[in-house]
Amino acid sequence: MSQRKKLYEGKAKILYQGPEPGTIIQHFKDDATAFNAQKHEVIEGKGVLNNRISEHIFIQLDNLGIPTHFIKALNMREQLVQEVDVIPIEVVVRNFAAGSLVKRLGLEEGTHLPRTLVEYYYKDDALGDPMISEDHITTFGWATPQEIEEVSGLALRINDFMCGMFSAVGIRLVDFKLEFGRVWEEESMRIVLADEISPDNCRLWDVKTGDKLDKDRFRQDLGGLLNAYQEVAARLGLISREGQSGSSGPVLIKD
Amino acid sequence: MSQRKKLYEGKAKILYQGPEPGTIIQHFKDDATAFNAQKHEVIEGKGVLNNRISEHIFIQLDNLGIPTHFIKALNMREQLVQEVDVIPIEVVVRNFAAGSLVKRLGLEEGTHLPRTLVEYYYKDDALGDPMISEDHITTFGWATPQEIEEVSGLALRINDFMCGMFSAVGIRLVDFKLEFGRVWEEESMRIVLADEISPDNCRLWDVKTGDKLDKDRFRQDLGGLLNAYQEVAARLGLISREGQSGSSGPVLIKD
Repeated sequence: MSQRKKLYEGKAKILYQGPEPGTIIQHFKDDATAFNAQKHEVIEGKGVLNNRISEHIFIQLDNLGIPTHFIKALNMREQLVQEVDVIPIEVVVRNFAAGSLVKRLGLEEGTHLPRTLVEYYYKDDALGDPMISEDHITTFGWATPQEIEEVSGLALRINDFMCGMFSAVGIRLVDFKLEFGRVWEEESMRIVLADEISPDNCRLWDVKTGDKLDKDRFRQDLGGLLNAYQEVAARLGLISREGQSGSSGPVLIKD
Repeated sequence: MSQRKKLYEGKAKILYQGPEPGTIIQHFKDDATAFNAQKHEVIEGKGVLNNRISEHIFIQLDNLGIPTHFIKALNMREQLVQEVDVIPIEVVVRNFAAGSLVKRLGLEEGTHLPRTLVEYYYKDDALGDPMISEDHITTFGWATPQEIEEVSGLALRINDFMCGMFSAVGIRLVDFKLEFGRVWEEESMRIVLADEISPDNCRLWDVKTGDKLDKDRFRQDLGGLLNAYQEVAARLGLISREGQSGSSGPVLIKD
């Protein structure tokens, strides 16, 4: 373990060099951050849950034919993924108004949007990840028009799948953030879904109660973040309900 | 004059009901405002210059076949225009980095952009005119995809013309803001350029000295706003140079 080369440490994950060229080990930390890392806390067990939830979703997306960086699960906190050339854009898919959209356009939180909205943000912590348009992306060469079309098409397919998955377990998918990367295979390049999909970067509301089951619990000081993530994992059948009250933490159930 | 019905008073203009149905009198005030009207001053003569400059540009654009709301000049401060259904979007065309783009994307002021950039902002003072993307525009029904395509095409044509016009008189067109509206004629609807084009909503830099000849003189407390606007009008042949030092103000030259 100690021999592994650390390639990058972010707010919620560490990337280590993988066993084969072109592979990376993605390690999920317990750190929770918000407001561009101005707020920070360690929530024991969060990384395990996010790894399990993200792994589950990526496997399902792969089954649907949506290309992802995911290769295989390694352990409770780690997964093996393909090394990608990260496209420096955060893709936000919104079904209901929440977060920055509410402030920006003066909407009421929870408003059902007339149709699914895809937004782009430039990945730059120093600039606070500013919102950008397709014209900014192509003007500054962050992606080509063809790549944007592919990315937005994949984002909408992922939204369709996730809306189905979450609604089946009584959860409203309000919005979520995706990241994509380029992978070169022989002569050709393809775009794959990268990063993670977890309650850290989705807004998930209980359909009946409206309870927030995502990182807004941390952002808004609502408390109970770990319980909320466990609830999401349990509804998706990824941990046993019994595990939640036990002292040994959640019992993971394999895909 | 006193019998006219005031339809709307904005920060820099008043709109009165015109003599015929479907017409409006656009009156240019001397008020200068910035930062969402938090900063305000009256600069005597500004309205006359903006009316003359905008009238000149709209006539030229009409000659090029670009549809505008302009019907005819009325007097030193007023022009007759078509009544339009205003599209609630500010279209910003940028050739060089300045203003909010510099802050948003961390660019150096004056950077020549890799290509002309078209940005959209939602016209809403209470929200501070937030930047929006094409996807916001179509999601909330502010314009159709076809209308956005037409608007951006017209914006780029207007940019081509204005770059030519200003470069011929030693002025760099850094960026500018446009507004468009819908006009119904019999059964059909067409999109026309509305509002104004003047140093109030363009960034104009002297090519040799870099001097700012636009409203940034007011925003940045540089002083000499009226002289700068007179310089623009004089270079475009719209006022006589002699008029600038005379006590009676600039002498307007007709198109």
